Amino acid sequence: MATGDIGLIGLAVMGQNLILNMNDKGFTVVAYNRTTSKVDDFLANEAKGTNVQGAHSIEELCAKLKRPRKIILLVKAGSAVDSFIQQLEPYLEAGDIIIDGGNSHYPDSIRRSKELEAKGLLFVGSGVSGGEEGARHGPSLMPGGSPAAWPAIKEIFQATAAQVNGEPCCDWVGETGAGHYVKMVHNGIEYGDMQLIAEAYDILKRGLVLSDDEIADIFFQWNKGVLDSFLIDITANILKFKDDDGEPLVGKILDQAGQKGTGKWTAVAALDAGMPVTLIGEAVFARCLSAIKEERVRASKIISGPKKEPFKGDKKQFIDDLEQALYASKIISYTQGFMLMRQTAAELGWNLNYAGIAQMWRGGCIIKSVFLGDITSAYQKNLKLESLLFDGFFNKAVHTAQDGWRRIIAQAVLWGIPTPAFSTALAFFDGYRSEIVPANLLQAQRDYFGAHTFRVLPGKENAKLKAGEDIHINWTGRGGNVAASSYSA
Amino acid sequence: MATGDIGLIGLAVMGQNLILNMNDKGFTVVAYNRTTSKVDDFLANEAKGTNVQGAHSIEELCAKLKRPRKIILLVKAGSAVDSFIQQLEPYLEAGDIIIDGGNSHYPDSIRRSKELEAKGLLFVGSGVSGGEEGARHGPSLMPGGSPAAWPAIKEIFQATAAQVNGEPCCDWVGETGAGHYVKMVHNGIEYGDMQLIAEAYDILKRGLVLSDDEIADIFFQWNKGVLDSFLIDITANILKFKDDDGEPLVGKILDQAGQKGTGKWTAVAALDAGMPVTLIGEAVFARCLSAIKEERVRASKIISGPKKEPFKGDKKQFIDDLEQALYASKIISYTQGFMLMRQTAAELGWNLNYAGIAQMWRGGCIIKSVFLGDITSAYQKNLKLESLLFDGFFNKAVHTAQDGWRRIIAQAVLWGIPTPAFSTALAFFDGYRSEIVPANLLQAQRDYFGAHTFRVLPGKENAKLKAGEDIHINWTGRGGNVAASSYSA
Repeated sequence: MATGDIGLIGLAVMGQNLILNMNDKGFTVVAYNRTTSKVDDFLANEAKGTNVQGAHSIEELCAKLKRPRKIILLVKAGSAVDSFIQQLEPYLEAGDIIIDGGNSHYPDSIRRSKELEAKGLLFVGSGVSGGEEGARHGPSLMPGGSPAAWPAIKEIFQATAAQVNGEPCCDWVGETGAGHYVKMVHNGIEYGDMQLIAEAYDILKRGLVLSDDEIADIFFQWNKGVLDSFLIDITANILKFKDDDGEPLVGKILDQAGQKGTGKWTAVAALDAGMPVTLIGEAVFARCLSAIKEERVRASKIISGPKKEPFKGDKKQFIDDLEQALYASKIISYTQGFMLMRQTAAELGWNLNYAGIAQMWRGGCIIKSVFLGDITSAYQKNLKLESLLFDGFFNKAVHTAQDGWRRIIAQAVLWGIPTPAFSTALAFFDGYRSEIVPANLLQAQRDYFGAHTFRVLPGKENAKLKAGEDIHINWTGRGGNVAASSYSA
Repeated sequence: MATGDIGLIGLAVMGQNLILNMNDKGFTVVAYNRTTSKVDDFLANEAKGTNVQGAHSIEELCAKLKRPRKIILLVKAGSAVDSFIQQLEPYLEAGDIIIDGGNSHYPDSIRRSKELEAKGLLFVGSGVSGGEEGARHGPSLMPGGSPAAWPAIKEIFQATAAQVNGEPCCDWVGETGAGHYVKMVHNGIEYGDMQLIAEAYDILKRGLVLSDDEIADIFFQWNKGVLDSFLIDITANILKFKDDDGEPLVGKILDQAGQKGTGKWTAVAALDAGMPVTLIGEAVFARCLSAIKEERVRASKIISGPKKEPFKGDKKQFIDDLEQALYASKIISYTQGFMLMRQTAAELGWNLNYAGIAQMWRGGCIIKSVFLGDITSAYQKNLKLESLLFDGFFNKAVHTAQDGWRRIIAQAVLWGIPTPAFSTALAFFDGYRSEIVPANLLQAQRDYFGAHTFRVLPGKENAKLKAGEDIHINWTGRGGNVAASSYSA
C-alpha cells in the first residue's frame, strides 16, 4: 500500500506550498504535522482535489512511502529537527533518506549527516529559498549531505525547483553540511543585496529628494539592465504600493530590521575562516543599528550633520553613477561570498561546484538575477576561477563602474548619508588590488609593543632580515630580545 | 615558613616581568614553571638579587604562600589553564584565590569562576595589558570574578599597575568573566586604533606621497594634541627607525597581519549581542585582507584604480583634516565599544563601572591615551551616560571634526586608497544620528517575499496599520495572508 513518492513533515506555509508544488509535478506526497488537525484542514482546503495523502502518525507516514523512503522536514531549526529524526528512526530502514529542508545551521547538518550515516540511513540538508512564492511555483533547492541520497531524490528535487532557460535551479552541492552552508552564504548575500538597495534608495530619497514614485521608476528602469533581479523588481513594486489614503505604504513602515539569523551566521563564519566578507558584515551591522531606533531618535536631536547643499549636478549622470555603484558593490559582495565558500571547502574537504551554486541561485530564490547567470558563465568558463574579479566579464564591469561608484560615495559622504555597504565594498576593492597595504605598520607596532615578530617583505631581505624567519627587533633598546610566547595582545 | 605574598606560574617574558614588577613594589613573589629549569635560570639571572623565591613543584609553590593564597597563572589560554587549576586544587584551602592573567576567552572565565566558587575557592580572571614593557613597569590590570577576592588582591594589584596622575590603572571590573570580557573589548579597540593609524599612514604615504621621516614628524606633532597616545608615539618611533643601510625598516616589513585573536572574539561578541561595532569588525577584516598577500599581488596586476591626480590643495589643511578624521573615527570606535559592554552587562547582569574601565585603560596598556582621560571624565560626570556621543565634550569634538573627516574620506575614495575603518566610522555616525534609516524598505522586502511582517512607524497608525501589531500585507494580491512561522529567509 506504499504509494507515496515522498513525505513532508511540517504544514506551515512553506511546507504546504512545497507539497502542492511537488503534487503539480506529478509526485505523490504524504503530509504529516504534529498537530494532526492541520493535516485534515490542509486536505480539506488547500490540497482538496490533489493527490496529496495525509498521515496522522509518523508510523502511518513511513508506511505510506515507497522505498527508499524520502522524508522532508520543514520544521523549526534546532531541537525540533533532532526530535523528528528520533521519532522517524524506528520506522526507517537502511538506505532511507531524511531531508532537512529548514534553515538549520550547517554544523548541525554536519553532525546529523554523520550520525545518520553511522546508522545506515542517509541524510540530506537542503537549502530551500524563495519564500512562499518560490515554494509554491519553484524554489531554489541546495541539497547536500550523503552523496548516495542524490540519485534517489534528484528527479523530484530538480522537477520541483525553479527552471531558468530549461535548467533546474537545483544540483548536488556537496558533502555533509554543504547544502546548508551554501544556503547560509546565500542568505548572507541576500542581506547584502537588500542593504545595497536600501542605500541606493536612501541616496535617491534624502540626497536627490525624489518621491517614492520617481524612485520606483528608476528601479523599474534598472531592472531592465545589469541589475535585473527579483529584489530590484519587488523594490519598485513596493515603492509603488499605496496605502488606502494614497500615500506610499513604505513610508509608514517602522525602520527597524531584525538580524538574528543566517546573515549573522555568515559574518561569524567569515571571521572564523579569516575571510574579509566585509559587505555582509556591514549589512548585518546596519540592521543592528536600525534596531536601536529609540537611541537613534535621541541621537538625531543632539547630533547634526553637514549643511545640506541642494544637488546642482547632472541628475541623469548621478542616477547612472548610482546604478554603477550598486552594480560594482554587488560584484564585490559576491566575490567575497565565493571567497568564503572556497576557503571553507578547502578547510572541510568539500568539493563545491561553484558554477552549479550560481545556477541554483539563478532562479527561484530571493537573490535570483541575470547577474547570477553571468557568474554561472564565469565559473563554467574556468572551474578553478580564483576570484570573480579575475573573470574577464566582471573585471571589465568593475573597471567600467569604478568612476561613478567613487563619485557616489564621495557625494554621500559629503551629504551625510550613510553608505556602509557601498563604502566597505570600495574599501575592499582598493585593498584587494593593492600589492602593498599598510599592514607592515601593524606588524611593526605588534613587534614593538608585544615582541610578536614579523616577516621580511620579499625583495628586502638582508643579513638581519632573513626570508622565512620570524624576526624580532629591539625597537627601543630597552625591551628584551625575547619573542613573545604565551602572551598575545 | 609561608612568606610568599603571591605566586606566579608561567615564566615567559610577561610572567618574568610581572614578577620583577611586583618585587619592586615590595611583594614577595614565588615563581613556578612547568619546565623547572626555567625557575633556576630566572632566579640566577633576571631575578638575581631580588626577593623572588622559586618553587620546583605545585606543592612547594602552595606551601610557600601566605593565606589566603593568591596564585597568578600566566600560561597559554585554553586547556593549560584548566590543567593548572586542577593541579593546584589539592593544595588549596577555602578562600584561596586562583588568578588567570592570560588571554582567556570570557566564557571560560565565567565557567571557571562558577566551578571554583562551588568548591569554596575564589577565581579572578584578569586582563593584563601593556606587553613586556607594561608588565615590567606597570600594566593595565582588569580583574573580575569572585567579588570576595578583590579585598585580598587589591593592594598588590593596584600597586603593581600603572599609575596615572596618582590613580592606579586597576580597579574591580565586575562579576565572573567581566575582567576578561573587558580585556577582550580593549583588544578589539586596540585593533581599531591600529587600523585607523594604518589608514592615516597610507593616506600620507600613497596620497600625499610623503616620506616615512615626514610622516613620523606628523605623528610626533599629533602626539602633542588630542591624539596623544602610546600607539601614536610608537608609530612615530617606528617610522623613524632605520635599518643598517639607512632605509626605514618599516618599508621592509611584510604587509601581512595576523588576526586569529581577541579582535575576532570582539567582532563575534558584537554580532551575538546585535551591537553595530563596525569599526572593530572592519579592523579585523582588514587584517584578513592583508593576510591573502599572494592573491592581492596577483590582483594588483590585473585590476587598476583611478588615475592618480597629484594633490593640489592645501597640504597643511589636509593634514589637519586627517588628524580630525582619525580623532572622530576613534571617538566612534570607543562609542561602539562602550555600547557593546553596556549591552553585554545588561544581558549577563554585570554591574560594570565604565569610568573605572576607562581609567584602567588610561595608562599601562597598549591603548593608553589622554583620550581615555576624557572618557573617564565623561563617565564620572554621568555614570549612566547612554553614549559617548551624548557627552558634551565628545559631542562637540565630533561636530568640530566632521567636515575634515568627510573631506578626507571623499579624497581617499577618489584617490583609490582604502579607508575601511574611517569609512565605517562615518557611516555609523551618519546612521546613528538618523531618525529614519532605510530599514523600512528592508522590512517591506522581507514581508513581500517571506511574509515576515513589519510594524508601523509611530505617527502613521491607521485602522489597517495598528501600533504594536505585527502587520502582513498581501503586496501582490497573489501571496496568502498567512504570516510566516517556521520559515525565515
